[in-house]
Order: sequence, then C-alpha cells, then structure tokens
Amino acid sequence: MLHYPEPLARLINELQKLPTIGAKTAQRLAFFMLKMPESDTTKLAQALSEVKTHLDYCSVCGNITDQQPCYICTDTRRDRQTVCVIEEPDDLLAIERTQEYKGLYHALMGVLSPLDGVGPKDLRIDQLFQRIHSEDIKEVILATNYTTEGQATALYLTKQLESLEITTTRIAYGIPVGGDLEYIDAVTLAKALEGRRRI
Amino acid sequence: MLHYPEPLARLINELQKLPTIGAKTAQRLAFFMLKMPESDTTKLAQALSEVKTHLDYCSVCGNITDQQPCYICTDTRRDRQTVCVIEEPDDLLAIERTQEYKGLYHALMGVLSPLDGVGPKDLRIDQLFQRIHSEDIKEVILATNYTTEGQATALYLTKQLESLEITTTRIAYGIPVGGDLEYIDAVTLAKALEGRRRI
Repeated sequence: MLHYPEPLARLINELQKLPTIGAKTAQRLAFFMLKMPESDTTKLAQALSEVKTHLDYCSVCGNITDQQPCYICTDTRRDRQTVCVIEEPDDLLAIERTQEYKGLYHALMGVLSPLDGVGPKDLRIDQLFQRIHSEDIKEVILATNYTTEGQATALYLTKQLESLEITTTRIAYGIPVGGDLEYIDAVTLAKALEGRRRI
Repeated sequence: MLHYPEPLARLINELQKLPTIGAKTAQRLAFFMLKMPESDTTKLAQALSEVKTHLDYCSVCGNITDQQPCYICTDTRRDRQTVCVIEEPDDLLAIERTQEYKGLYHALMGVLSPLDGVGPKDLRIDQLFQRIHSEDIKEVILATNYTTEGQATALYLTKQLESLEITTTRIAYGIPVGGDLEYIDAVTLAKALEGRRRI
C-alpha cells in the first residue's frame, strides 16, 4: 500500500540487513541520509567500500589489519611467549581496551558448534598449533566467551594442548556467565585476565 | 591507545554521524560490514549514493519522489480539495500508513522556531498560499506535530488562513502531547485524523 520511491525502498531494504536495524530505524536512517549533504553520504559510501578493499585479516593472528602481519604481531615490545586465543577479532579490541595484556593473539574466527556444523577444521586451530610449534610460546590463554560453545571450545583446546610443554590458562570467572566478551566493561575484563588460572 | 586500522576507523567515524548510532553500535555495524560479502556492501554503498542522485522533493507537495510531481500529486483518484499540511515528508508516510486520508499534502520542510532562527520565509508557506490561490482547495488540515513549535506553526497558519474562504482544521488531540507524528501508531493517528475539528 505504502509507496516508497524505488531508490529509497532499496536503501531501507539494504539497511535492514544490518544487525540492530529494524524497519523503523532503517526508515529513520534512510530519511536522515536523504537530508545529509551529498559530500557526507559519499564519504560514508566510500568508507564502506574501502573497508572491504583495504582491510584484511592478519595472516598470523586473525586481527583486522591494513598491513601483513598486523601491528600487534610485528610489535617487538610485546610478550611473544604468551598467546591469547579469542573467538573473533572484535574480542581482541575488547582486550586491548583494558591495556592489561601485552602478549600476542590468535583469533579462531568462530567457535565449535556441532549443531551449526562448525568443527575444529572450520576454525583456525591448525594455525594455532603451527604457531606453537614454530614460535617460542610458553602460555596459551583461552579467552573464548563463557557461553556453551565458548566453554566447549576452551575444553577442546585444553585437551589438545595437554601433551605439549605449555601452560594453558582460562581467563577467570568474573565475566558474567553467558556474557559476550565484546560487551564487557574494561575493568571486569582486566580483572578476569589478571585472575586467570591454570587448567 | 586503541589502534583501529585507518579504513575501519573512518567507517566507524562516518557511521557515528547517523542518528541513534553511538560508538558501540558504530563499531558493531562496522565489524558486521567487514564480514558481509562484498556484493552486499557494494549494494548498500550504491543504494546510499543513488538515494541522493535519483531522489528529490516533489516540487508541489515536498514529498520524496523519483518523478515530478510525485505519485500523490498526480493521482486523479485523490480528493484534490483537501490539503494536509505536515512538517516533514516523513510525516506523509506516517499518515499514508493509516489508509484513512485520501487528500493531498503540503510539507513545510520544518517548523517555525524563532530560537533557531527559522521564520515563515524559511518554510514552504508561500508555496502553500500559491497552491490555495491556484488550485481548488476547500480544506486545509494542519497536521504539524503537537510540540511547542508545531503548535505555534499551526496557530500562525490559522491566522494567515482566516481571511480566506477555506476551512482550516487541526488533527485531533488523541496524539499524545509532545509526541512526534512519525512514531505514533496508525490507529491513534487515524483517530486523530477522523476527529479533526474546525479552528
């Protein structure tokens, strides 16, 4: 019944594909974009395109980067004997925000989830073991989320790491159970890192 | 301290300029966009550019349109003797959604607001009177928001319309005082239109 001009309908439709953007927000954003000066919408459209063309995942740790390897992997001041295993690159930013951690990272790019058909081969687990064998890594901190899948993934990795001469730790409870690392405040996350215990 | 690669930082920065998008949502959206297939981000970027190049405001009523005049102004089945005066084109969509109104529209493109320096000359008020003189308009429905500025604008227009042989009505209370037309549910808005009274 309601008639949007075609270009507007398309923009609203594309915006609705984004997380947290429902029909009303999409409409509101689209109308706002209509009123923005053209220079601003151009900048946004360009930023959107460039983020896809200029950025990639770090071949070593999985961080989002515009250089290979990323600035963390190449930073000689960091503790190269500690690797923090995370689910997604977003989690790396959450941990960096605490300014408590000085080691390296390894993003799995997901989490074990048999129901969704995600097994160990679908994650960057082989790459983790290659790093452990080729680099001088003494401690692996498992910082997957405290969700069922995150816990299962930590348990799986613990078993795989058992035979190696390496300290395996899990970030401490302190993170609310069921919580998503990305949304935890920096102080809690710093405490959880500080209180990590051997498993 | 926190180091985003430059293209990502730029995207997050541009996203934060949008309404309802704060720092965290902008980061979340940017990461989501990073993971989207390139075809989808291209579609979004294109939709964003096209909305600026292919759309314009209707020269008659101010509706957002890809043709001149818009599909409402050219629809011969509509009641051409009734004009509903609204603040913004968004409000037109809210009223169309009720499916109760069959007349024409006139968007003022704002509202009288002396504190912000918006006077009658900054709104499409002259165009409204030109339409009243050249078209066969019998009733003007004032459907500005029930905010201080919206009320003041309605009052101003009422006084200007007094001398003309025209019925001036205001959409009925029923809309919560201080409410913004765009966010009212269709039933309430339909009731408000139905119960409009002469002023």
